[in-house]
Amino acid sequence: MFSEYAPFTTKYFYHIVIAVISFVLFNKFFNWSYRRIAPKVDEKLFEDVQEEPALPKDLKHIPYRYIRLPEKEMLSRASEFYQIAAARRTLRYFSANPVPKEVIREIIRAAGTAPSGAHTEPWSFVVVSNQTMKSKIRSIVEQEEEINYRKRMGVKWTVDLSPLRTNWIKEYLTIAPYLILVFKQTYGTLPNGKKKIHYYHEMSVSIACGILITAIQYAGLVTLTSTPLNCGPAIRSLLGRPANEKLVLLLPVGYPAKDATVPDLQRKPLSEILTEIY
Amino acid sequence: MFSEYAPFTTKYFYHIVIAVISFVLFNKFFNWSYRRIAPKVDEKLFEDVQEEPALPKDLKHIPYRYIRLPEKEMLSRASEFYQIAAARRTLRYFSANPVPKEVIREIIRAAGTAPSGAHTEPWSFVVVSNQTMKSKIRSIVEQEEEINYRKRMGVKWTVDLSPLRTNWIKEYLTIAPYLILVFKQTYGTLPNGKKKIHYYHEMSVSIACGILITAIQYAGLVTLTSTPLNCGPAIRSLLGRPANEKLVLLLPVGYPAKDATVPDLQRKPLSEILTEIY
Repeated sequence: MFSEYAPFTTKYFYHIVIAVISFVLFNKFFNWSYRRIAPKVDEKLFEDVQEEPALPKDLKHIPYRYIRLPEKEMLSRASEFYQIAAARRTLRYFSANPVPKEVIREIIRAAGTAPSGAHTEPWSFVVVSNQTMKSKIRSIVEQEEEINYRKRMGVKWTVDLSPLRTNWIKEYLTIAPYLILVFKQTYGTLPNGKKKIHYYHEMSVSIACGILITAIQYAGLVTLTSTPLNCGPAIRSLLGRPANEKLVLLLPVGYPAKDATVPDLQRKPLSEILTEIY
Repeated sequence: MFSEYAPFTTKYFYHIVIAVISFVLFNKFFNWSYRRIAPKVDEKLFEDVQEEPALPKDLKHIPYRYIRLPEKEMLSRASEFYQIAAARRTLRYFSANPVPKEVIREIIRAAGTAPSGAHTEPWSFVVVSNQTMKSKIRSIVEQEEEINYRKRMGVKWTVDLSPLRTNWIKEYLTIAPYLILVFKQTYGTLPNGKKKIHYYHEMSVSIACGILITAIQYAGLVTLTSTPLNCGPAIRSLLGRPANEKLVLLLPVGYPAKDATVPDLQRKPLSEILTEIY
């Protein structure tokens, strides 16, 4: 009876069934791989995961206290800041000399003043000075980095980094007195237990890291801004970080080794990075 | 003959053909949609687009000159930097008073000292003080933001931002003496005309922005760190930026308005953002 109305459907019933099964299977597979590869998309920013606003509804607004500097002082402070920032270099050779904890705490405090989407402050800083823990982190990083150098990144990455004399041996991870591990919180938790959206979390955390490395430089210490590719999950689990946190950066902090060298790099001149429309 | 050796293949030949066609079609479709939704994935960082290293192969390594500060000075500088950073607030009310160009140039110079993946320096800063151009930027932003507030982001974003008293009217974009538009370069160009890989470009540019807003604060000026959602293409074309650049942030810079207010926000205490493993 059904075949009278839809002869095509009956005749090719098995074929249709196979096509549908294939569709479902591949859909599932690609969805899975898509999620695994690309967890953060702009469109995902505004997913419906909460009911209460992130900030109190009755948030007061207060006068902004401001002391205006004379133009001359403004210019000299801007130049002074540039000089400090320009003196910063990425170091790969550290001294084991200890650094007072309180200096590191002030540096993290400074990083925590960064702006963030809807003031969500989506960052966690883990400071490690424990030698056993540093060794464990080093072995995770070296294991992954060896794969990165040998396989994942292929010849290009190795070629591109070779002038910087980097490889997968990361002695500084056990030598530097501190490792700062910066995590982004992809979402937060509201007092009622519901998830709280964290807008632009990666950008907010990276901005905080810009302040962090400036604070390190300002205090007279040195660091290496590193992105340990694929080490995130293992380090997160080693440090017992919650499920909403993802490793963004790993920064050894301390004094440079006595014989530390840096590659003789030049920075782009202002004319190459600035366009003025006056 | 073939059927003797592989009876299954012969009997279900059409079914297999359909399964293969389904696979190819859905593979193609999902590949396409995957590319459209998620153009920047870690794995894509190391695509084969160049043959020469980003840095010269014979890059010299030079001794790092370093003056170690006494611990006491280190701590007082770390605290001083924290005080400066902590005094920074995101401002939404600007004065039209002019600011010397040279101050802005020093600030951009400082931002350009940021570290970047394989020293690719993947940033462009466009400083706009021209009134007509500022008006055009404002109208692009307001048009998109109205859609964002009314439709795209839905109730959540509006609810989340309402305590900050923001809406889609952005007067400051024409009042502030300068707009700094920060672009990331998703790839560069080698002297031989080939594409040059820009590793971790968004993170590098965001770190540079952390230094940028700190430089603005250090010089005694104020800013608003804004991410103009969906305005990128229109602003890029308005400013005639090349195809490899994408708008990341838009920062009005200047003095605060006389009666400027700020939301009475608190920052998370150190204990909430810092975990120490000693």
